Amino acid sequence: MNNSFFSRLTPKEPKFFPVLKEMSDIILKTSDLMIACLRDDYHQKAMDYYRKIKEQESLADNLSHQIFDDLNTTFITPFDREDIHDLANLLDDVIDGINNSAKRIALYNPKQIPDSAITLAELIKEAAIYIGKAIDELDVLKRSSTKIKEYCNQLHVIENKADDVYEHFITKMFHEERDGIEIIKLKDIMYELEKATDSAEYVGKIIKTIIVKYA
Amino acid sequence: MNNSFFSRLTPKEPKFFPVLKEMSDIILKTSDLMIACLRDDYHQKAMDYYRKIKEQESLADNLSHQIFDDLNTTFITPFDREDIHDLANLLDDVIDGINNSAKRIALYNPKQIPDSAITLAELIKEAAIYIGKAIDELDVLKRSSTKIKEYCNQLHVIENKADDVYEHFITKMFHEERDGIEIIKLKDIMYELEKATDSAEYVGKIIKTIIVKYA
Amino acid sequence: MNNSFFSRLTPKEPKFFPVLKEMSDIILKTSDLMIACLRDDYHQKAMDYYRKIKEQESLADNLSHQIFDDLNTTFITPFDREDIHDLANLLDDVIDGINNSAKRIALYNPKQIPDSAITLAELIKEAAIYIGKAIDELDVLKRSSTKIKEYCNQLHVIENKADDVYEHFITKMFHEERDGIEIIKLKDIMYELEKATDSAEYVGKIIKTIIVKYA
Repeated sequence: MNNSFFSRLTPKEPKFFPVLKEMSDIILKTSDLMIACLRDDYHQKAMDYYRKIKEQESLADNLSHQIFDDLNTTFITPFDREDIHDLANLLDDVIDGINNSAKRIALYNPKQIPDSAITLAELIKEAAIYIGKAIDELDVLKRSSTKIKEYCNQLHVIENKADDVYEHFITKMFHEERDGIEIIKLKDIMYELEKATDSAEYVGKIIKTIIVKYA
Repeated sequence: MNNSFFSRLTPKEPKFFPVLKEMSDIILKTSDLMIACLRDDYHQKAMDYYRKIKEQESLADNLSHQIFDDLNTTFITPFDREDIHDLANLLDDVIDGINNSAKRIALYNPKQIPDSAITLAELIKEAAIYIGKAIDELDVLKRSSTKIKEYCNQLHVIENKADDVYEHFITKMFHEERDGIEIIKLKDIMYELEKATDSAEYVGKIIKTIIVKYA
Repeated sequence: MNNSFFSRLTPKEPKFFPVLKEMSDIILKTSDLMIACLRDDYHQKAMDYYRKIKEQESLADNLSHQIFDDLNTTFITPFDREDIHDLANLLDDVIDGINNSAKRIALYNPKQIPDSAITLAELIKEAAIYIGKAIDELDVLKRSSTKIKEYCNQLHVIENKADDVYEHFITKMFHEERDGIEIIKLKDIMYELEKATDSAEYVGKIIKTIIVKYA
């Protein structure tokens, strides 16, 4: 195991993986909040949900900057550094997508949010679970690169599903909705939800890149 | 030639340039598809064109990830690595712009797309040709840095032209169009086309940076 | 001082700080132009202001590419290189935000721009002043890391204020404005102004990261 990602980083510096895992836990938590928001009476409660999600987003932001600072004061090679930096940034992007859609639901207060928004939020939650599993396995890389690859492939499958949901929604909306202001609102909200699944797919791609290097 | 980009990379690792060239060929191909789409009956056929363009976009995505994986398993300096990485990413951005505008034409189904969209698509095609020429010359860098600079300058000229076309279109649209939903559709479509020429200009800038370093 | 950012870079290469300072001066200048534009008769003069701001934006773009070229031909470590590269990019992002909002004011010609746009422009100007101070102190890092941290924290405070202004505006606009086309225009303009303060906050974060490393 002397050439693995784990062995190069963890013995000396065991702190990156737990922090990355904390970030992936925040994705899970905020996607749960988003699903609850959409199922609840969002006309009344969207602002509360947004505040809770924003609080988590701030936490994730602090975690990623803690990682950047630690990377800068820890002796590791530039390539390892770059991978962890990119991974933390991409986890942040997923959370930003959830936060931005929650913000827009709260501020825009659309008449009715389509069921496909819940479908997208559930796909984000599914992605969060696979991301958590993949990060859990990163420290036993040699034994489980097949598993990690499978988790990353699932993130690709989820993104494709989200793409279909989004495309179907947009086509339908422009076909049926005649209120331009509602279109502005829903397009913006759904765009951010779909983008969160894009970012989750990129998380999978960078993790696969890490495997190619170290496995 | 012992300090050139070519000599440092190609003898050991001849695989990056052909793949970058393949990506630039995809830009050419997708810009041709976009021009054909806009000249054809897009109300009926935009979805077919979008599917073809999306297929090419997937190919380009795979090529760029092949490059990233190869970069990670090839012994080259971090600076060379970074340049090729950035160049592949920027080529991807151009293709994403074309793909996103094709997607929006297909999903939004606007009443009428302005002629200036064809002008932008033709400028993207022109940019694709210069990008191809510049990449062709990268492997004979010492002999042709003047030529490469000229190609990159042309990418800047094209972006300026696209800027003017876009600005003129937006001003006119807000002056004349009273249908808010059409404005939403056309603004989004034209924005992505214009952004593709921005990305093409950045391709030129990164190539110029490479020349400064190695020429 | 033998491990400071200053001592590692400036003796051999004194050219980065003055250029970064020039970029921060351009942020100050363009935010002043934006404030003047919003206070002036923008229906008549927005295009003039946009042209002046765009000219400054071009200058900043050239400065950042001068920095990238200098970084590539100067012997410094990859980590220093990366920091200066990121800092120049982020300064560019602030200017892009100002330029994009000026462009949209000129091209969209909205009926009336809300007072909160002036508030945002003033916050950008305030951020520009703190960025300038922080860059001034970077070359005497050991003596003033407390000061720099305080400036960076102010950039965070400013971003929070801008967030509140923006959120309040958006909520009010969707509550009161019934003209979909005006909503499209104002949302786009205000979005870019708010994003400029986000970028200013990121400038603060990268400067703090530099301090952690070298102070």
